Amino acid sequence: MFHFKNAMSQPHQPSPSKLLAFVRDLSALLHTNPAEPRILAEGGQLLARLVAQDDWLPEAFAAPHPTYYQQYLLYADPFDRFSVVSFVWGPGQKTPVHDHTVWGLVGGLRGRERATDYARQADGSFVVSGSSVLLPGQVTAVSPRIGDVHEVANDLADQASISIHVYGGNIGRIDRHVFDPASGAAKSFVSGYASALVPNLWS
Amino acid sequence: MFHFKNAMSQPHQPSPSKLLAFVRDLSALLHTNPAEPRILAEGGQLLARLVAQDDWLPEAFAAPHPTYYQQYLLYADPFDRFSVVSFVWGPGQKTPVHDHTVWGLVGGLRGRERATDYARQADGSFVVSGSSVLLPGQVTAVSPRIGDVHEVANDLADQASISIHVYGGNIGRIDRHVFDPASGAAKSFVSGYASALVPNLWS
Ligand SMILES: [Fe+3]
Ligand SMILES: [Fe+3]
Ligand SMILES: [Mg+2]
Repeated sequence: MFHFKNAMSQPHQPSPSKLLAFVRDLSALLHTNPAEPRILAEGGQLLARLVAQDDWLPEAFAAPHPTYYQQYLLYADPFDRFSVVSFVWGPGQKTPVHDHTVWGLVGGLRGRERATDYARQADGSFVVSGSSVLLPGQVTAVSPRIGDVHEVANDLADQASISIHVYGGNIGRIDRHVFDPASGAAKSFVSGYASALVPNLWS
Repeated sequence: MFHFKNAMSQPHQPSPSKLLAFVRDLSALLHTNPAEPRILAEGGQLLARLVAQDDWLPEAFAAPHPTYYQQYLLYADPFDRFSVVSFVWGPGQKTPVHDHTVWGLVGGLRGRERATDYARQADGSFVVSGSSVLLPGQVTAVSPRIGDVHEVANDLADQASISIHVYGGNIGRIDRHVFDPASGAAKSFVSGYASALVPNLWS
């Protein structure tokens, strides 16, 4: 009649407690209302610690889609100060050229992804300004201040790549842009999230 | 190749945005570090507003289990200051006599539940000190200060009852007690949660 071990009836899966520790540490950092360089430096260290081992992401939030790269919300701050998302790219998948409008930190968790950065020119078009590979454990940043326009692709043709993204807002609801690099034409977009569920970090 | 409307591919379901507003308001209240009477009074008003309409709880978190009452975590504070849980009782289901060890607020959302309160006597045994019915929109409270031991039952024989509980901690992980009222014997228990997933309040 009374079920003492409800939680134990769940199928075994990785513990998201490392993610809860990250959320707690980042919340505490943002409580101090730091300027962006400090957020990127100290938040980046927290994220590097989170992605140092690939043993905590629940399977449901690591699943690729056959056609589209997936953005799974893992946690968001009730005051929209930050959101944490797992990006899962299947083989050959990539984003369009896009911006974020808020600071972002990206940590490699699995596989290998390639970011191509774009810079706006005087005539409004974009040129490639750099390209880099993100490996598991590495962290990189974007923001309107340091460079906000890029394209991200799975650099592996035969397996999924996963990275953990942290943004200075509820990224799935932010009105931002995709660009046609040649013309510089911008289109509004709101990314949404791939799932109506997020992990229970408190089990 | 690029999926502009990931979020739109979700099946239609109630919006949890009212729940996010509640979480935000309760977080802001607890930021001020109020004493328990103020938490129960002002938090109770926030909860009354949340349960005033039964139009926001996602279906997955309103599903009864054939045998056990369900405790679905809806949100928990990263610093363990509070948790929000939907309790779903199938017909005839009830809790054992139990305590909480932290403050709790209970708001009726659907159906009708009956709480039986217990008071400890000098010899250690418990006697019934009261019984009350909770209807949709009503809010009640428990705590070690005002009375912490009760049994809660679905008061309907033919349908599920649902209430929304808010506690001053991560209730699924708190070491607390169930009691045999006649002898007063206590047994440790940790309730856990019925699901490894919680709703995405940020979609
Ligand atoms: Fe990006
Ligand atoms: Fe209770
Ligand atoms: Mg009472």
